[in-house]
Amino acid sequence: MSIHVKLVTPITAKGLRKNEHLDLMTSNVLKVSAQGIDIGPNSIECEYEEAMSQPDTILKIVDAENEGCDAAVIDCMGDPGLKGARECVSIPVIGPCETAMHYASMLGHKFTVVTVLDRLIPQFENQALLYGVPSKLACVKAVDIPVLELEDDLNATVEELKLKSIDAIKNHNADVIIFGCTGLFGCADALQTKLKNEGYDVPVIDPIPLAVNTAYVCAKLKLAQSKKCYPQPPEKGMVGFSKPKLKVAN
Amino acid sequence: MSIHVKLVTPITAKGLRKNEHLDLMTSNVLKVSAQGIDIGPNSIECEYEEAMSQPDTILKIVDAENEGCDAAVIDCMGDPGLKGARECVSIPVIGPCETAMHYASMLGHKFTVVTVLDRLIPQFENQALLYGVPSKLACVKAVDIPVLELEDDLNATVEELKLKSIDAIKNHNADVIIFGCTGLFGCADALQTKLKNEGYDVPVIDPIPLAVNTAYVCAKLKLAQSKKCYPQPPEKGMVGFSKPKLKVAN
Amino acid sequence: MSIHVKLVTPITAKGLRKNEHLDLMTSNVLKVSAQGIDIGPNSIECEYEEAMSQPDTILKIVDAENEGCDAAVIDCMGDPGLKGARECVSIPVIGPCETAMHYASMLGHKFTVVTVLDRLIPQFENQALLYGVPSKLACVKAVDIPVLELEDDLNATVEELKLKSIDAIKNHNADVIIFGCTGLFGCADALQTKLKNEGYDVPVIDPIPLAVNTAYVCAKLKLAQSKKCYPQPPEKGMVGFSKPKLKVAN
Amino acid sequence: MSIHVKLVTPITAKGLRKNEHLDLMTSNVLKVSAQGIDIGPNSIECEYEEAMSQPDTILKIVDAENEGCDAAVIDCMGDPGLKGARECVSIPVIGPCETAMHYASMLGHKFTVVTVLDRLIPQFENQALLYGVPSKLACVKAVDIPVLELEDDLNATVEELKLKSIDAIKNHNADVIIFGCTGLFGCADALQTKLKNEGYDVPVIDPIPLAVNTAYVCAKLKLAQSKKCYPQPPEKGMVGFSKPKLKVAN
Amino acid sequence: MSIHVKLVTPITAKGLRKNEHLDLMTSNVLKVSAQGIDIGPNSIECEYEEAMSQPDTILKIVDAENEGCDAAVIDCMGDPGLKGARECVSIPVIGPCETAMHYASMLGHKFTVVTVLDRLIPQFENQALLYGVPSKLACVKAVDIPVLELEDDLNATVEELKLKSIDAIKNHNADVIIFGCTGLFGCADALQTKLKNEGYDVPVIDPIPLAVNTAYVCAKLKLAQSKKCYPQPPEKGMVGFSKPKLKVAN
Amino acid sequence: MSIHVKLVTPITAKGLRKNEHLDLMTSNVLKVSAQGIDIGPNSIECEYEEAMSQPDTILKIVDAENEGCDAAVIDCMGDPGLKGARECVSIPVIGPCETAMHYASMLGHKFTVVTVLDRLIPQFENQALLYGVPSKLACVKAVDIPVLELEDDLNATVEELKLKSIDAIKNHNADVIIFGCTGLFGCADALQTKLKNEGYDVPVIDPIPLAVNTAYVCAKLKLAQSKKCYPQPPEKGMVGFSKPKLKVAN
Repeated sequence: MSIHVKLVTPITAKGLRKNEHLDLMTSNVLKVSAQGIDIGPNSIECEYEEAMSQPDTILKIVDAENEGCDAAVIDCMGDPGLKGARECVSIPVIGPCETAMHYASMLGHKFTVVTVLDRLIPQFENQALLYGVPSKLACVKAVDIPVLELEDDLNATVEELKLKSIDAIKNHNADVIIFGCTGLFGCADALQTKLKNEGYDVPVIDPIPLAVNTAYVCAKLKLAQSKKCYPQPPEKGMVGFSKPKLKVAN
Repeated sequence: MSIHVKLVTPITAKGLRKNEHLDLMTSNVLKVSAQGIDIGPNSIECEYEEAMSQPDTILKIVDAENEGCDAAVIDCMGDPGLKGARECVSIPVIGPCETAMHYASMLGHKFTVVTVLDRLIPQFENQALLYGVPSKLACVKAVDIPVLELEDDLNATVEELKLKSIDAIKNHNADVIIFGCTGLFGCADALQTKLKNEGYDVPVIDPIPLAVNTAYVCAKLKLAQSKKCYPQPPEKGMVGFSKPKLKVAN
Repeated sequence: MSIHVKLVTPITAKGLRKNEHLDLMTSNVLKVSAQGIDIGPNSIECEYEEAMSQPDTILKIVDAENEGCDAAVIDCMGDPGLKGARECVSIPVIGPCETAMHYASMLGHKFTVVTVLDRLIPQFENQALLYGVPSKLACVKAVDIPVLELEDDLNATVEELKLKSIDAIKNHNADVIIFGCTGLFGCADALQTKLKNEGYDVPVIDPIPLAVNTAYVCAKLKLAQSKKCYPQPPEKGMVGFSKPKLKVAN
Repeated sequence: MSIHVKLVTPITAKGLRKNEHLDLMTSNVLKVSAQGIDIGPNSIECEYEEAMSQPDTILKIVDAENEGCDAAVIDCMGDPGLKGARECVSIPVIGPCETAMHYASMLGHKFTVVTVLDRLIPQFENQALLYGVPSKLACVKAVDIPVLELEDDLNATVEELKLKSIDAIKNHNADVIIFGCTGLFGCADALQTKLKNEGYDVPVIDPIPLAVNTAYVCAKLKLAQSKKCYPQPPEKGMVGFSKPKLKVAN
Repeated sequence: MSIHVKLVTPITAKGLRKNEHLDLMTSNVLKVSAQGIDIGPNSIECEYEEAMSQPDTILKIVDAENEGCDAAVIDCMGDPGLKGARECVSIPVIGPCETAMHYASMLGHKFTVVTVLDRLIPQFENQALLYGVPSKLACVKAVDIPVLELEDDLNATVEELKLKSIDAIKNHNADVIIFGCTGLFGCADALQTKLKNEGYDVPVIDPIPLAVNTAYVCAKLKLAQSKKCYPQPPEKGMVGFSKPKLKVAN
Repeated sequence: MSIHVKLVTPITAKGLRKNEHLDLMTSNVLKVSAQGIDIGPNSIECEYEEAMSQPDTILKIVDAENEGCDAAVIDCMGDPGLKGARECVSIPVIGPCETAMHYASMLGHKFTVVTVLDRLIPQFENQALLYGVPSKLACVKAVDIPVLELEDDLNATVEELKLKSIDAIKNHNADVIIFGCTGLFGCADALQTKLKNEGYDVPVIDPIPLAVNTAYVCAKLKLAQSKKCYPQPPEKGMVGFSKPKLKVAN
């Protein structure tokens, strides 16, 4: 029996999450499908855009549970809507940033997030705090390239990632690298090889494949968010958004 | 010259923030006006509802700046939309939970939040972490009464608040009490007197008057959120929400 | 292609890890085999015994890499030899306590370890510190039953686990339970059901299946401990232990 | 009705706190008066001098309460005598360092204190710890100019402050600046403008005006230090100092 | 050659530190002499009294260095004047609270301070923070007996200490006890025996003998406070106190 | 009556701990003898070697108690076997790293460990965490010289130590230096003088003399590890190691 994981990309721009990305994660025990949102920003590069993306992201995760998916993954390193969605459904909801930070904490003494924009540095520091691993965060570094331009010159992007990674390794004792943007899907191998060629033998975490496989593990072992921590929302009036069709509380 | 503070109540239910509340805060140096939201939940009692309340809360704060207000206060202890709004405007944006936690940290060794529902306990613990004062939080206690029923029997509500406060004082060494719901506006004096009558001489913080006066201080001293930390969002497509009319970036 | 995970049980008593345990974790993508140690204590219930168990545990993990295993899991919640083994091999080495604490941090706000003996409480608190998640640990509770007697009356053991779990949930705000002894393999479902029947809907983590599946994910995604953090030991004289046959450093 | 705040300058040198400083803070709702001490050091630049300044600072704050002041502010970033004074009186006693650190924590992700002497760096780090905001402190920087020479060449002083601020912003991710000496009263605007001209749009906190306005807010909202945390001292013999005339314990 | 340690008792009441106390600590390698202060409170039971005790305590420690003592110990668990005195002299200055907390951190996983009055609880928590060991502090307990009445019924005092210690051991996992008042000199053995008789085998630290022996170790190994951290105070005017005769800065 | 401290050097290489080292620590109140181990690595430079050294180190400490020693010190900055040995004996067991970190925390605001190899940096950071003093650790620096080559050119070694120390002092605000390898016994004075000559007046801690004297203080004051925290191991089968002859549990 295969596990079906829904990947919800919380932006209204189309085409970021390609079928070949999904194919790379699919196997005979794991099915991965993707879904964008209909209301919200074209891309997410700040707290404001993250706030605007949350409502429909949560609603799409409710849809995923109603469609019979076994788990949901939010396709953005800000993990927008993570807590709200966990209240609304009983299937495991996985955030790639949370997952990457916890795996990175296991793989080395300290990790670094290499992200796209300087303005996201406080956000990643706050996430490390909230997820409980501030002492494992060596530093956050940014390459200063907007999300939707990351793939314009992918080689140049990976080269920048390499330079920032080496700064983190040499000057902040980082020993694990996390991609700080899910738009960098698939570049982990290239970066890891480049770093190894310069003498830095460190794992590079590609957050979406890791989050999808973590969702698989949770679903397989019947582990999901604690309903004591994330109980179903109360029945209540809601203006301007469709009300989620919550399954009967367990 | 008086300072004009806009209080944005991030729910679609009407009538929570009454004119007499505003009058109590108004003086010859301070004008306070209030505004609800048009899109979002009737009340906020969980992470999901907080997520749904954020988009229009942010947009209403942008409106406040465009109307010439000197500062904005979010009228909910979850501080929904605080960071997103701070990016969108240059006037100070104040969250009552953040303000209350920082003032409480100054008034005693440890503080307690007495809130409405058990399910909000992790949320307040997370806020203490994010706001940088986890070591000052003695504990969070809940009276288990829904927001919209708090005023049904106000005496009983305050009596419950007293019992939870005493538990926090005696068993967790709390020495300052914060109301964990802005729906309890105006009950601070009654609770403080009841506690004093039982031998506990502790300040009780009513978060909205404190947040409004903090907004006044910031506006008067020309202090606002750091634009290095909260830079304006990038120009970008947005589906399903009106785009905020941001003032030209400074 | 299936992933082969070696489970190294770091005690000299035989029969703790039964074939049916392995079968429960085996699938068409995952092969699990087990191995005890030849030098060390019969069981592990204190720091001294953990110290005595480490040398051969590390050597058995080196053997596992030389046999072609894709990953190794240490079968004890003390994670004995974890760091030393990670230096000696390039395949991922997974500790069940570390893994359980990080997954538990993702599944709720705070977790509890329910273990066998009071004397282990400081050890689990130290592990939470070292693994970087002290703020997520609600408390450690112990049922006070020696490891090798846990299965004598399994119903009574699970009943005791339930009482300690409820204490942690009610009095320390725990919302995830971790079994603090790998000797309790397979009891998670029973405990979770008992807790749900009493109104506590919390996940119960069975550390060995979780660690084995985490090893699977790491091996599949080619993630292993950082060699910057865990470089190969230097070539050196060793008296009284066989020298590990390390693969050529990468 | 206007609030009367007493500013106690804890040094025996005269003339540091000028009338024009007080006038800048005075309004039709706020009266500010100043008072030096009669016993103690000429200025405060180390822990020893801070210790010598505390007894008379506390006694002067007791005088302020007896004179009918509504609140007292200690005019030194070491906040000397803060806790002792809070025990002796019931009016709010405000420390400029404590206040500045809490407001700075609200205005950005991390703040920096730019102070006068290297030797004060540990003291500010200790204050951030005690006040509960160590995670918000980016770093402490010093310009290495003695307190009583700060105004000798005010332009050069502000230029030095600018350089240290930029170091903190660029290399330590600071996004709010606190003046680490109350002798720098009035320079905030100049520094903020200089920083903005170089592309750093960060708030600069002038601690005394902020502390005085915080005292105003506390007095207006009838908030003062918790008497559970700061109970009146016991009646007791005291040699060599006048005994404070404490008001009857509440 | 014997080491001469000066014990400065920072109160003006006479007779607290008796000759037999000194004799107990004296040996052929260690000479201990005692000195009270001339200006300050009769005893120390709050922050105000601690502030009033600091000036003459510091001056008496300067005298001790000038008399040729090898080290100084402050005879109060508030460690009043510790930092100021360290600036003024080059001989090691030892605080009994700081010393006891660091030794207790080595002797077990968590320690408890059992002190005289409830009002001192925040002070000990602050000291644990400042001394860098907050995670080792299990809790602070108070027997609620004024300092100068501790010896009125010493048996009753020790019995109360026992009850509070057991509370800390059973409910807060303390495994080391620190006396939180130097007025309890000499009771450690009695308390430790009582606790052992009830099944609790924990060390009880008597802070003054430990501090005096720590001073001995520092003097013998030529270790003293870092002069980078505690540089000599600047030459400066001082009103109302005698100016300390500082030795020429090294 | 003199105190007898046993120094257990946890390596199988001979000659590291010379008689002249012991003589330097011996006095008419303190006898110091040394003992190597028979099973384990030639030297300790990584986690793997530390794990291999622990079993016989623990057994040698049990021997020391049985021989009538008053205290034991582990002669390696990794403190291998510290917790296990504390369970097995009732005499105080002292680790030089733990002792040095606690004394350094008392002597200044922040300390630095200057060690031999980069790979040990995470280990010292973990020890600071476990020992409860992470906020006092400024940084760890390494000179990159293998343990057994430290004495090949002692002048060059001390010169390297000086450069790393100055880096820590200037760039990380360290004000106390700890030698991060017990192989550097006796170099503290030389390093301290070199640093002072360059204007840095900081104490340099030589961990073994400090640990031996700390053992002396504990034995003299009858303080040892808490038996509540470190209870005797249970009676149990052990394969491949001699079973320790534990004294009857107290």
